[in-house]
Amino acid sequence: MIEKQVKNIGKVTLVDFMGSDKRVLEAARTSTGASATKGPEKDKALIDYLMKNRHHTPFEKIVFEFHVECPIFVARQWFRHRMGSFNEASARYKEFEWSPYKPDRLRLQSTNNAQGSSNQSLSDKESEKIFGMIDSCYEVANQTYEYMLSRGVAKELARVVMPVSQKTEFFWTVNFRSLMNFIELRSHSHAQEEIRMLSNSILNMISSIPELEMSIEAFRDNSNVGKS
Amino acid sequence: MIEKQVKNIGKVTLVDFMGSDKRVLEAARTSTGASATKGPEKDKALIDYLMKNRHHTPFEKIVFEFHVECPIFVARQWFRHRMGSFNEASARYKEFEWSPYKPDRLRLQSTNNAQGSSNQSLSDKESEKIFGMIDSCYEVANQTYEYMLSRGVAKELARVVMPVSQKTEFFWTVNFRSLMNFIELRSHSHAQEEIRMLSNSILNMISSIPELEMSIEAFRDNSNVGKS
Amino acid sequence: MIEKQVKNIGKVTLVDFMGSDKRVLEAARTSTGASATKGPEKDKALIDYLMKNRHHTPFEKIVFEFHVECPIFVARQWFRHRMGSFNEASARYKEFEWSPYKPDRLRLQSTNNAQGSSNQSLSDKESEKIFGMIDSCYEVANQTYEYMLSRGVAKELARVVMPVSQKTEFFWTVNFRSLMNFIELRSHSHAQEEIRMLSNSILNMISSIPELEMSIEAFRDNSNVGKS
Amino acid sequence: MIEKQVKNIGKVTLVDFMGSDKRVLEAARTSTGASATKGPEKDKALIDYLMKNRHHTPFEKIVFEFHVECPIFVARQWFRHRMGSFNEASARYKEFEWSPYKPDRLRLQSTNNAQGSSNQSLSDKESEKIFGMIDSCYEVANQTYEYMLSRGVAKELARVVMPVSQKTEFFWTVNFRSLMNFIELRSHSHAQEEIRMLSNSILNMISSIPELEMSIEAFRDNSNVGKS
Repeated sequence: MIEKQVKNIGKVTLVDFMGSDKRVLEAARTSTGASATKGPEKDKALIDYLMKNRHHTPFEKIVFEFHVECPIFVARQWFRHRMGSFNEASARYKEFEWSPYKPDRLRLQSTNNAQGSSNQSLSDKESEKIFGMIDSCYEVANQTYEYMLSRGVAKELARVVMPVSQKTEFFWTVNFRSLMNFIELRSHSHAQEEIRMLSNSILNMISSIPELEMSIEAFRDNSNVGKS
Repeated sequence: MIEKQVKNIGKVTLVDFMGSDKRVLEAARTSTGASATKGPEKDKALIDYLMKNRHHTPFEKIVFEFHVECPIFVARQWFRHRMGSFNEASARYKEFEWSPYKPDRLRLQSTNNAQGSSNQSLSDKESEKIFGMIDSCYEVANQTYEYMLSRGVAKELARVVMPVSQKTEFFWTVNFRSLMNFIELRSHSHAQEEIRMLSNSILNMISSIPELEMSIEAFRDNSNVGKS
Repeated sequence: MIEKQVKNIGKVTLVDFMGSDKRVLEAARTSTGASATKGPEKDKALIDYLMKNRHHTPFEKIVFEFHVECPIFVARQWFRHRMGSFNEASARYKEFEWSPYKPDRLRLQSTNNAQGSSNQSLSDKESEKIFGMIDSCYEVANQTYEYMLSRGVAKELARVVMPVSQKTEFFWTVNFRSLMNFIELRSHSHAQEEIRMLSNSILNMISSIPELEMSIEAFRDNSNVGKS
Repeated sequence: MIEKQVKNIGKVTLVDFMGSDKRVLEAARTSTGASATKGPEKDKALIDYLMKNRHHTPFEKIVFEFHVECPIFVARQWFRHRMGSFNEASARYKEFEWSPYKPDRLRLQSTNNAQGSSNQSLSDKESEKIFGMIDSCYEVANQTYEYMLSRGVAKELARVVMPVSQKTEFFWTVNFRSLMNFIELRSHSHAQEEIRMLSNSILNMISSIPELEMSIEAFRDNSNVGKS
């Protein structure tokens, strides 16, 4: 179990995984009838070949179980990836501990990318004012939420005032093929910084697993992740 | 195109569909080599048989395209259904028109169902007070959102104050098999009223399509939907 | 309905489809809140952009229904594509009309591609001898099959002697995104000629649909299909 | 690794698995915010509740890796289950060792089930004759296959004469939810005996895993498997 707090954005935990480079080789070589391993050099060459030519099914033999804590608006981006299994905390069942995410700097709208932020932030003075406004929003929403619960309003309704920055948590089972797709999209420079940092964290985390060394290296070599 | 406004909760539009009872029969009978249709009585009996015995693949021949407007917290429940295709409005790309959902009555927490509401609502006097608090929350969040945008803060960040009740919209492509699964879960008495009303609306909508008469009827006869 | 016999290999029929370039544009632009169409030039540019940057979800709005006749060994390759819906004839239910595929020339094993054929064929004389042997195989298998059925052996067992070249048929519902993936892999020069010709046929077939002109053209421009 | 030879039909090997009852409980309780385990009695009750009410997502936390050897006609039934990952031996890449399946008794066609066998078998005398015919078929097909290969015909073409009873092998990654669906359909009395015996074998195999005791027991209690 590897755990990583990502600033004030969230936390990623690798709970478990199944499979290995050897399992990928075995799966790939079952089609040709060859024995699973042929020595490090040929093994590495085959994994590179599979990756480069997008023969991705053998990488479905590697499966990960993660636990993720992140703001709801990030979870919304995460759940668009359909090829995996999610179990999330529910604000219908449980009273959420109030913990909305507050950015530590206010990135400006990008001028050449309609969906993104630029590298520039708002001035300190303006930021200070806005941080105060955000705090007030969160505070008044929290009070309203608590007040509704205290009066017996159903949790599923009391949450209407909850901001999309509220922290949530979920378990995520995903195979390596789908995870590669996730990382390519979410570690991309066009992805929102918040999910990008979590995605990068996941890539670093799995890069330290000795059994997966060849597969992860082949993925890094054949994708644009981390290249500008 | 059939369109249905569901109170102040949202709107459902049937944009298009493909397939028919005949197509279901054709698909089912390709396995036996029989001709597609054998007269209304035998055709109906076969569709009933497929439904009752959960031989659901032939129903994947019917595909729907919907457009949905609903609060974000409802969309979150919707997107848990992975067997379909979603294209949603993005608060990273566009400034959202402020339109959070406000319940028209405040249902009380159910005492025998941890996740749900009871049939009882809060008293009028208490409700009035809480509606005022909700309005204030939405108002101050709206002002903060607009202020951030006016200062050049990136849209993807300005949205942190947006409540989960904010309206969103999406296109949804889904086959009839997956739609049946959606309706069974979301028209169920344990589902949240907001999504239940939208789900019921969808069922009513497709029930009026003559080409699907046998399939929809068989679904209604063999599911618990609408039975208490 | 467009129908195409592909030599003696099989037959492909486009039974129905749903969606259009306009539907793709609508889905893509819902994220930005723009109106669905902005004139042919901008529309085309957007579809090209989506395709080039592999923003493939809007193409899931286009769904096809095909009917396919082909040898079992080709169907086996086809069914590896999991993102679609299949209904196939069953040799458990019905007696199959004996119709195994016989290649019209015997391609030689490729020397530089372990899985494929070279462009060269066996000499006419050798071919003639082998075609005779194949005919005998098919004939003795057919007699054994018929004999078993005549003695009351279950159809599901009598088929043990059926060659993998026997013709089968199935309905296939698939969205354009998954179809693109199919065509990229199966119209590829490394794919087996038999499935490649059927895949090419499908691409030609959908290329004649006016409503999909921009999407198909963008696919052709951005894939390697048909380029050597 | 548990391995099981299933008569002359095939072989099933449990290569690996991930997850446990505890992981299922953890995933289920994340929605309510409760701690993962609450003692054996409450834990068992929750797992039973999830199973009975078809809240199946937590069971996606358990993932299996199997290796399967079976006739092609059985593999064809297996691959219809789309929610899993397959890597199969390829007769394009490798010369297959000739090993077609020969039933040890000739079940008669069922008279009340169009797709199945009855419990009765053909008489010994008739069977003997037919077994001889089957042997001849397999023999002449084998000779033709070998002859084609010896003359340089591509492996992908030489296989046209291969019977659908030929043994193949594949790796299969599948989560417990999808495996339950597989077992319910393939251990069903209407399934073909050959796949039913392999499916039963898989169920027995996983039933011996201590970490999955509650989940498997709940599955057995809430399904019709093994009940007549």
